[in-house]
Amino acid sequence: MIRAKIVGPGGYGGCGLLEIFARHPEVEVTGVIGVSDVGSQLSETVPHLADFYDLTIKSTDDPSNTENVDVVFFSTPDGVGMKGASQYVDKGIKLIDFSGDFRFTKSDEYALYAQALKRDTAHASPDLLPKTCYGVSELHRKEIKKAQIVGNPGCFAISCILGLAPAAKSTLFEDDTIICDCKTGVSGAGKKPSPTFHYPARYENMNAYKLTGHQHVYEIKRELSALCGHEVALMFTPQVIPLCRGIMSTLYVRLKPGVTEKAVWDAYHDMYDGEPFIKLFTPDQALSSAVVKGTNNCYLTIKVDKPNNRLLVISYIDNLMKGQAGSAVQNMNIMFGLPETSGLDFPGMYP
Amino acid sequence: MIRAKIVGPGGYGGCGLLEIFARHPEVEVTGVIGVSDVGSQLSETVPHLADFYDLTIKSTDDPSNTENVDVVFFSTPDGVGMKGASQYVDKGIKLIDFSGDFRFTKSDEYALYAQALKRDTAHASPDLLPKTCYGVSELHRKEIKKAQIVGNPGCFAISCILGLAPAAKSTLFEDDTIICDCKTGVSGAGKKPSPTFHYPARYENMNAYKLTGHQHVYEIKRELSALCGHEVALMFTPQVIPLCRGIMSTLYVRLKPGVTEKAVWDAYHDMYDGEPFIKLFTPDQALSSAVVKGTNNCYLTIKVDKPNNRLLVISYIDNLMKGQAGSAVQNMNIMFGLPETSGLDFPGMYP
Amino acid sequence: MIRAKIVGPGGYGGCGLLEIFARHPEVEVTGVIGVSDVGSQLSETVPHLADFYDLTIKSTDDPSNTENVDVVFFSTPDGVGMKGASQYVDKGIKLIDFSGDFRFTKSDEYALYAQALKRDTAHASPDLLPKTCYGVSELHRKEIKKAQIVGNPGCFAISCILGLAPAAKSTLFEDDTIICDCKTGVSGAGKKPSPTFHYPARYENMNAYKLTGHQHVYEIKRELSALCGHEVALMFTPQVIPLCRGIMSTLYVRLKPGVTEKAVWDAYHDMYDGEPFIKLFTPDQALSSAVVKGTNNCYLTIKVDKPNNRLLVISYIDNLMKGQAGSAVQNMNIMFGLPETSGLDFPGMYP
Amino acid sequence: MIRAKIVGPGGYGGCGLLEIFARHPEVEVTGVIGVSDVGSQLSETVPHLADFYDLTIKSTDDPSNTENVDVVFFSTPDGVGMKGASQYVDKGIKLIDFSGDFRFTKSDEYALYAQALKRDTAHASPDLLPKTCYGVSELHRKEIKKAQIVGNPGCFAISCILGLAPAAKSTLFEDDTIICDCKTGVSGAGKKPSPTFHYPARYENMNAYKLTGHQHVYEIKRELSALCGHEVALMFTPQVIPLCRGIMSTLYVRLKPGVTEKAVWDAYHDMYDGEPFIKLFTPDQALSSAVVKGTNNCYLTIKVDKPNNRLLVISYIDNLMKGQAGSAVQNMNIMFGLPETSGLDFPGMYP
Repeated sequence: MIRAKIVGPGGYGGCGLLEIFARHPEVEVTGVIGVSDVGSQLSETVPHLADFYDLTIKSTDDPSNTENVDVVFFSTPDGVGMKGASQYVDKGIKLIDFSGDFRFTKSDEYALYAQALKRDTAHASPDLLPKTCYGVSELHRKEIKKAQIVGNPGCFAISCILGLAPAAKSTLFEDDTIICDCKTGVSGAGKKPSPTFHYPARYENMNAYKLTGHQHVYEIKRELSALCGHEVALMFTPQVIPLCRGIMSTLYVRLKPGVTEKAVWDAYHDMYDGEPFIKLFTPDQALSSAVVKGTNNCYLTIKVDKPNNRLLVISYIDNLMKGQAGSAVQNMNIMFGLPETSGLDFPGMYP
Repeated sequence: MIRAKIVGPGGYGGCGLLEIFARHPEVEVTGVIGVSDVGSQLSETVPHLADFYDLTIKSTDDPSNTENVDVVFFSTPDGVGMKGASQYVDKGIKLIDFSGDFRFTKSDEYALYAQALKRDTAHASPDLLPKTCYGVSELHRKEIKKAQIVGNPGCFAISCILGLAPAAKSTLFEDDTIICDCKTGVSGAGKKPSPTFHYPARYENMNAYKLTGHQHVYEIKRELSALCGHEVALMFTPQVIPLCRGIMSTLYVRLKPGVTEKAVWDAYHDMYDGEPFIKLFTPDQALSSAVVKGTNNCYLTIKVDKPNNRLLVISYIDNLMKGQAGSAVQNMNIMFGLPETSGLDFPGMYP
Repeated sequence: MIRAKIVGPGGYGGCGLLEIFARHPEVEVTGVIGVSDVGSQLSETVPHLADFYDLTIKSTDDPSNTENVDVVFFSTPDGVGMKGASQYVDKGIKLIDFSGDFRFTKSDEYALYAQALKRDTAHASPDLLPKTCYGVSELHRKEIKKAQIVGNPGCFAISCILGLAPAAKSTLFEDDTIICDCKTGVSGAGKKPSPTFHYPARYENMNAYKLTGHQHVYEIKRELSALCGHEVALMFTPQVIPLCRGIMSTLYVRLKPGVTEKAVWDAYHDMYDGEPFIKLFTPDQALSSAVVKGTNNCYLTIKVDKPNNRLLVISYIDNLMKGQAGSAVQNMNIMFGLPETSGLDFPGMYP
Repeated sequence: MIRAKIVGPGGYGGCGLLEIFARHPEVEVTGVIGVSDVGSQLSETVPHLADFYDLTIKSTDDPSNTENVDVVFFSTPDGVGMKGASQYVDKGIKLIDFSGDFRFTKSDEYALYAQALKRDTAHASPDLLPKTCYGVSELHRKEIKKAQIVGNPGCFAISCILGLAPAAKSTLFEDDTIICDCKTGVSGAGKKPSPTFHYPARYENMNAYKLTGHQHVYEIKRELSALCGHEVALMFTPQVIPLCRGIMSTLYVRLKPGVTEKAVWDAYHDMYDGEPFIKLFTPDQALSSAVVKGTNNCYLTIKVDKPNNRLLVISYIDNLMKGQAGSAVQNMNIMFGLPETSGLDFPGMYP
């Protein structure tokens, strides 16, 4: 059994891990570490899991945190993981971080990300950056297997990257501006209450925000550029939708002259056939965010628009699963040599 | 492995069974039988389960229906099970019906139920009624174990029965009118679209309906009367709430003079301690329908109101789980001698 | 034109007043007074009203507050009005308070209410209590017309009081425990964000709270007792429902022996025929909270349950209109001799 | 008083007109004409308007339909207006149609639209097409004033057209593919129930549909091309969001080299300053669909993305107001020489 500890069990990310681990055949949760609620029973924080865990929330500076543990998950806001990582990493414990702290291997790349969040642009543990790997399992399996630290991708980012990776890898599109028009459910904003996400303010409301300035743009750009072999430009518009779980990213690129519809489909099949969590759909097959809800799946509708010579991809994920805890567990499975679907092969719930 | 077939896989009840059986260690679904969609792949009806089943929907008169099957679930509207049951029952196949068709062992009791639904009051298979057992697992384990047919309880009914059973068994309350004020999510009305449950008509709306005339009243009355040892009277007010899954039943009875708070708690603990799916809460412990969502649990908040000498019980279930498919599987587990929690021991999903 | 000022324009109550006054033919809003946002434009707080008001939010201690004003609305939490009232009242300005501060004319009655809220039980301005009147327009027109201060009723309270007033006045029911099973939309909890009303925590969730301990019980009890001519007992169970606007109160009383259905209807028609905002419905007429949404109406479905000898009333209001700002304006209309429907005679919006 | 009749009072469009006319100072509704519910009281169809109208629904072939009427609204599905129009038009009655029947003045343009809907491509009344005018008030005031027939614009279409009209008129963008990424609330699909819009299927779900094939594309293309002075190309992706009212259209165009941010703002101010229903916002001003809910407003957030040389416009409307009944009344006001805001100058409701 893999012994896992979770820093930040009270947020949606930590809760997602706990739900998955309650039925993961190879993982035992040996500790939960928090800031608030230290000393209280975990079940007070996640009452629906009371039958599954009997754990007390420990403080971040509890000396036993680094004992009896093979992997630690930092399901914490930006800035926490980079400060708390070394105590675990130094002892050879593997680490998966949910924030942007370990999504970049270079300090200057991190600085751009941090700037978009108006945070300190200096990374707190630059020495750890070479040990980290970006956690899109489908693109970086080999590196993830060897990495000690995985920077779990941003929820918007993974939906865009998976949606366009095959087209980028086969350089099917113009060195043009890619457009990522992304819609997220409210859980993407986390568990902390705010006026914007107060029920009466949100139940019948939608809006775009951080126009051209959202921090996830850097991960998307880097990954697609790496696949293309050269720098790409892109616009990314985040929008909040009154539902709880789900990201729908509508992705537009202009195809290079002569690229056929067959070439597009071939690129996607080449990359994704055999992937356990990705499935391709034609526009006449009904698809919607509810189909992937509660699962680690990323489902893609692909449409080639001949008259406009554009490729249109609609990418659907559950932001708390493939966009967060699900990806984290998939990455952990890779790190420990388990089947990637281990603990993730359960159905969603409908309706 | 128990071989199960499902009549009506397209509705919410059938879908619920398929989700549970996708992870039930002792059950294999060997067939799905429908009216619409005959000949099509099951995955067209339940696209989120495409990875779990490779089955074609067969017609109700397909001769192979009674082969390769140990138990058949009629997840169908009233009137279907009573007509289709004998072909299975005659061959010794066990049967669980989701409608009111087999909730009553006497024709005249069924007639009252049918009348409330404005249906033909004559039962189509009166000869089968002695073979049936009412499927509240917690109350009728022994009979369910021996029964060939189980009439799965109504969703409102089971929430009220479990909420008041200990008080009834200990005859703690007056031969007074019990009040069951019940609120259900919209999924309780089934999958078929209607003007009343069209999204714009329902998203910001709530209403009471069938005032004093809902058909579930007969089951509740019979079960509580049986526990009391004499006939009880009750009022039951169903109400529809703009959420998908969940029943919250607010139950009021007047305590007999001299009944202490301790006596109330003792009655509930006596009956429910050790029950895997029932948990008791005091009013100061936060509880809500989301805590039981997606699970087979029934959670009860118990409050003794001294000044009014009343007992107030708030009963929370997921109407599609404990109120439908979950109870059906719990009953099946009992019928086949499996642990009751088999296939039902997964956590809910939050948020 | 009546000159009105609003203390607390940023909450849902103040916003409701501003929406009504934007089309009230006899009212001009001459000032808005706040605690937060002092000095900012009102339109920053209520952006959808930017075309209707050009006002700067003033501080509570701005000396001009008592100038150029005929009536002041305290749309503020408990404890604010009772401290700020005298500066207005002393100058002869009429005052309508939205909290419980002026719903009671006796200090000891107020103390019970305050205790339920765990607040200081001593009223801050006991000398003002004799000048106040409880603001259920339909019951207290004459007193409201003469009062200088009106304590606007609690949202749950007015729905219950209007639902049972005719039965109480005609003493149709037993000196029994009345049951008020009440469901409110989330806006009833106000504009301030909290974990309980964060969108993901609430969108698919319902719960009961403050079992037998909600502070509105005292108003309901007092009003129904006054109508009956003797003390009544009652249970009141508040519940939160995932919608924004609406209260549905399901009310149960046991009828005295011999009370006929006709007697019940006569009592309701006697009291409410001619009331501009109240309408009576039989159980076969479809009714739901959406029908009254956005209006000052209180619609009642009345059902006499012969077998149980009970009266069942379902009372529907918009908690922010008849339950708050709408009632306040109706009371203001009475205080200033305007038609009661003035400024309130617009239709709701559907869907 | 203008005498108005409404064909199709039962749908959301007809309901929207009735709500507006309940407070329009210059309009009296003299008749309602339906297909279903003929002979019944209008209030049975729109119970929340029972206090405002006392009308019986007449049949479409009732001879009195063309009497006592100055303007008739066809709030009906495609194909109805074009067949029923002439009886009114021949008598000089003005007509506003909500479908695509009169949005095109040329048969071949209509044919493209009809084809996208898989309808008969031949227009039923081609002789009427020269009398019709496209009803975007802000662009076609002069023609609307003189027209006898107005084809009210599609809800998606008007949001896109108003969002890009100034940029098109000033030819600020490349002859490039415009991208219109549009999200609509569920009311956009009308009142008729369907599996897709059944509450449980929709409350926590979003999806794109009719990829590159939605019928509104032709109106948008024609209007923007006319403003540009040459044919433009565009992609338009409709998406359904789980809320009731609201369209958020995210619009992308590539700016011509050298176009400054100032030039963009100048173009928008030139066209829209003075427009009663349009307002411009910078990205740092909070805006969302709830701000325009219930109103005839179109609010635009404008962002110039220098690095990508793109213009990004977020266009917010209420699809049932500016996207339907509100625009229709604005057009009617123009046709009859009334102030454009007449009957439309009420605030929205929040929350």
